Amino acid sequence: MTGSPVSVLLGSGGISTQDRRDTFRNLVSSHFSGCKQVLFVPYASQDHDKYTIRMQEFLGSDAPIMSGIHTFEDTSQALAEADGIYVGGGNSFLLIRDLHELGLVTPIRDMVLRGAPYLGVSAGANVACPTMMTTNDMPITLPTSFSSLGLVPFQINPHYHPGKILFMDGNELRDHYGESRAQRIAEFHRIHQDPVLGMWEGSFVHWDGSIGQLSGRATAFRVGENPVELADGSTFEARLELV
Amino acid sequence: MTGSPVSVLLGSGGISTQDRRDTFRNLVSSHFSGCKQVLFVPYASQDHDKYTIRMQEFLGSDAPIMSGIHTFEDTSQALAEADGIYVGGGNSFLLIRDLHELGLVTPIRDMVLRGAPYLGVSAGANVACPTMMTTNDMPITLPTSFSSLGLVPFQINPHYHPGKILFMDGNELRDHYGESRAQRIAEFHRIHQDPVLGMWEGSFVHWDGSIGQLSGRATAFRVGENPVELADGSTFEARLELV
Repeated sequence: MTGSPVSVLLGSGGISTQDRRDTFRNLVSSHFSGCKQVLFVPYASQDHDKYTIRMQEFLGSDAPIMSGIHTFEDTSQALAEADGIYVGGGNSFLLIRDLHELGLVTPIRDMVLRGAPYLGVSAGANVACPTMMTTNDMPITLPTSFSSLGLVPFQINPHYHPGKILFMDGNELRDHYGESRAQRIAEFHRIHQDPVLGMWEGSFVHWDGSIGQLSGRATAFRVGENPVELADGSTFEARLELV
Repeated sequence: MTGSPVSVLLGSGGISTQDRRDTFRNLVSSHFSGCKQVLFVPYASQDHDKYTIRMQEFLGSDAPIMSGIHTFEDTSQALAEADGIYVGGGNSFLLIRDLHELGLVTPIRDMVLRGAPYLGVSAGANVACPTMMTTNDMPITLPTSFSSLGLVPFQINPHYHPGKILFMDGNELRDHYGESRAQRIAEFHRIHQDPVLGMWEGSFVHWDGSIGQLSGRATAFRVGENPVELADGSTFEARLELV
């Protein structure tokens, strides 16, 4: 999207309508244009082979070849040789555990800082942040650290939605009284300073190393300030302030 | 509720209607009958004093005196001398971090095994399980371990709801495509064997050391089996099988 050395595309997930699927395919195609081989990182899922095949099929024949990183004996060499990297969604705790255990955090960061395009969706967007602490996932495993790739200087809450939720109890719509995302992010901000981008489902952010551009909708949360709605096409800097 | 040596009352949370508040006060009053002093554990919240006062006010003058455990210099002695313990809700990661760091896991377990009634709501129910891995909370801090009090032999997912969620976008009701609770619990069950009780908001479980009794609604999840709905008043054993 830009000629700058860093090219990070992060998606909220929730790509479950035809419109969103089309948008996603176009963004991926543009993001990886010029890439012959893209490494796919399926560790957020529990079936690495199946997930890699499913994603290749979903992206279609226009997409570059996706090679599952789990199929390489020497993953560091695989990273050094690949043109781009796509970290898929699933469970962020599984993903960050494996990235740390396999020693992949620094090699992935180096590769992206060298200019290889990074795509991360949902859990793959969480781990592109300084930490994965603003995930919505269930902590089914304890990683050695929540520190993450730090490819962007802000946190992301993927699958963000405003307000409280509702659910169907048979045919009845019921109120749910659990914490809203804004309340959870406020809990995070009692301990941490990093701004948090609440990304609505279907939305994407491209980060070029200094400027972010939003496709879709998002809400920016900064410590001590009211949340700010960001419109489709907004551009912002590291603090999520509009530029 | 029983004459057996263990008395553990666990609530899902979501006590946000008058009916639910009345039920909760009655259950607490009965659970702690005979207790003069109950230790309140506010570590899941970020303002310990405020939360302790709020809870004492909420429970009213019929409830025993709630002493915040954070006000004692010697917490182990406070635990040894208290008649009961109430672990409040908030963020499970904060709570289990502090329980481990302050060396409170074993003293609390010992106290409950000696017969002191335990009450845990939401995060306080999560940490009564073998681990707190079936929480819904945001991982805003990394605890040294997810191991928990193990006062009950099954896992709890509090604030449980069936199916996918919906949210209000202004006046429009929108579908959300994030994972359902059942999908998250299935992810847990790919790694762990413990049965999981999805507790609907407003529901409670009393565990006497071998038998659980449900007030309200819950859904039982076991590895490799279909989820089973449990009706109000159901009694079940350690595997969440009806008895």
